[in-house]
Amino acid sequence: MSTLDLHADPAEITAALVDIASVSGAEAEIADAVETALRAQAPHLEVVRNGAAVLARTRLGRPSRVVLAGHLDTVPVNENLPLHRTGSGAGEVLHGLGTVDMKGGDAVFLHLAAAVTEPRHDLTFVFYDCEEVEAARNGLGRIERELPDWLRGDLAVVGEPSNAVIEAGCQGTLRAELRRAGTRAHTARAWMGENAIHGLAEPLRRLAEYRPRVVDIDGLTYREGLQAVRVAGGVAGNVVPDEAVLTVNHRFAPDRSPEQAERHVREVLDGFELSVVDVSGGALPGLHAPVVAELVAAAGGHAAAKLGWTDVARFAALGMPAVNLGPGDPTLAHTRQEHVAAAEIRTVADVLRAFVEVRR
Amino acid sequence: MSTLDLHADPAEITAALVDIASVSGAEAEIADAVETALRAQAPHLEVVRNGAAVLARTRLGRPSRVVLAGHLDTVPVNENLPLHRTGSGAGEVLHGLGTVDMKGGDAVFLHLAAAVTEPRHDLTFVFYDCEEVEAARNGLGRIERELPDWLRGDLAVVGEPSNAVIEAGCQGTLRAELRRAGTRAHTARAWMGENAIHGLAEPLRRLAEYRPRVVDIDGLTYREGLQAVRVAGGVAGNVVPDEAVLTVNHRFAPDRSPEQAERHVREVLDGFELSVVDVSGGALPGLHAPVVAELVAAAGGHAAAKLGWTDVARFAALGMPAVNLGPGDPTLAHTRQEHVAAAEIRTVADVLRAFVEVRR
Repeated sequence: MSTLDLHADPAEITAALVDIASVSGAEAEIADAVETALRAQAPHLEVVRNGAAVLARTRLGRPSRVVLAGHLDTVPVNENLPLHRTGSGAGEVLHGLGTVDMKGGDAVFLHLAAAVTEPRHDLTFVFYDCEEVEAARNGLGRIERELPDWLRGDLAVVGEPSNAVIEAGCQGTLRAELRRAGTRAHTARAWMGENAIHGLAEPLRRLAEYRPRVVDIDGLTYREGLQAVRVAGGVAGNVVPDEAVLTVNHRFAPDRSPEQAERHVREVLDGFELSVVDVSGGALPGLHAPVVAELVAAAGGHAAAKLGWTDVARFAALGMPAVNLGPGDPTLAHTRQEHVAAAEIRTVADVLRAFVEVRR
Repeated sequence: MSTLDLHADPAEITAALVDIASVSGAEAEIADAVETALRAQAPHLEVVRNGAAVLARTRLGRPSRVVLAGHLDTVPVNENLPLHRTGSGAGEVLHGLGTVDMKGGDAVFLHLAAAVTEPRHDLTFVFYDCEEVEAARNGLGRIERELPDWLRGDLAVVGEPSNAVIEAGCQGTLRAELRRAGTRAHTARAWMGENAIHGLAEPLRRLAEYRPRVVDIDGLTYREGLQAVRVAGGVAGNVVPDEAVLTVNHRFAPDRSPEQAERHVREVLDGFELSVVDVSGGALPGLHAPVVAELVAAAGGHAAAKLGWTDVARFAALGMPAVNLGPGDPTLAHTRQEHVAAAEIRTVADVLRAFVEVRR
């Protein structure tokens, strides 16, 4: 079995994690390595195993608790394993699957777990499985059902890549299908039919002309969006089609509930048959909570709005402030070219150590 | 092997043909039956076999020659074999695969082949394979390459269903793909992308507002059309799509060449990337040719414009006038409910006998 040295440079821990392949559903080996390392090298922590997830926490009786959560799984391998390196020293870059999404974040948390034995806040570490697949398989959901008290705290930090910047809150996301019906006919006798695809002209015009809101919450700027993400229709090359379906994705700022977001989309596409396929609420940034303010201060006072949807929203749904903070450029996630600067991993480790270590 | 009685009522010949299943590519049995019957029961004809096609002709030295062409294949069986009958006598209806498309037409031609031994025009009968599949497999194309003189004549009558009305000429058909490009982005950062599906709003508006020409040629009315037949686009539920493709089908009257039709579609969709996928020219009705005028007279003086595209255009491309005349409602073709009135089969047989028999 692979051995992890939790007292190594966090960039080296990242490299070791990357070289343990862990595509969603096949996280047993990496979970074994994490569990073994925590039990051996962080004996001050209570450790439990839950499926392919590993949880660890302090029980120091501190007035507040911070949950640090990172998924261990990756999207499928795409000719980007094993890890390779370019540059050296301060300019070193780690390349490979998971360097960005999100073994850099995991490595920072594992480093903290071993290095900070007496933190200012009680700490809970959650290393979980199956984040990159359908929501029903998400390990965090299973932990919420089976070990709910392990997720409780005063702040959750999710280590997804954020360019080492604190991203607070997250936007909600709603998908809906707009369905146009028509009447099938031979194209040689098109006047006997009604073309469902032509019926998409007006909804597409509204989407093309749509001006999304830009919303300010706690000084953070959330930019919404309403985009067609799929269109499909057609029976045969000589048939006037009787059905066409347009799928839209609305990203909405966390000042709106899922219900308000749905009402908005129905207003924009008023007059058309619309069915909501899925919706996930956003999370307010919660920057005024004292423990969040402390973390922002440790990061130099800067925070940005989180526009994508992450597991931050799962913690928000539990009533906790939650932020995203991790090394790596999120736009590289899921690409073959995933890579992260070693220095950025160390930066995040420094910020979190400054936040959780007792000031001397 | 099935035996065909070519001296029977044409409706009975139809019934016998229907009960010899002949889905495209599996026409050997029906071709054997047709060949055997022609050799035995129409000894005045020269008969040749070409693959699953059977050809037969008189060589009487008449000043003009009429080609009568019908395909022997059908679309796949759809719980509509064997044949069944409803009604009786003058109200009898034949139900089943091929009753409409086009064993009624074949039966009329087989009836003529045996019954009219001394026609006014020389006659060529072409019973061919694979009309219901891609054009490259069409038996008529193979015959054109291998036995070109067998298709020559002064008029071609294609026995596709036409409600027993002469349909003259045929419209052309052109398919083109309109491609919109965009820039991929995460929907949470949609302003970094450009949505290719939204880019279909304007071309779809033009199609929805398009007013097709109605063209009069030789007193026949051709109604054109320009219809979207397929639309596709989308990468994932959270991605601004970078490509969308709209396929359109233009049906054009035979006063326009394929080149003119393409120019017209490019004008309508000016400003967009368009590529022509396939195009088949139409055929002018040619009602003024003497032999065509005779046929129209035999049918009571009435002819209509053919709007769909049929193998009529293949004969037109050989420089011959060509019309469509067959029993059955073409809108029932390719449906499970195919059925034809026995009386309509007899009507077409009567019209063609009146046309080819020597007037006494």
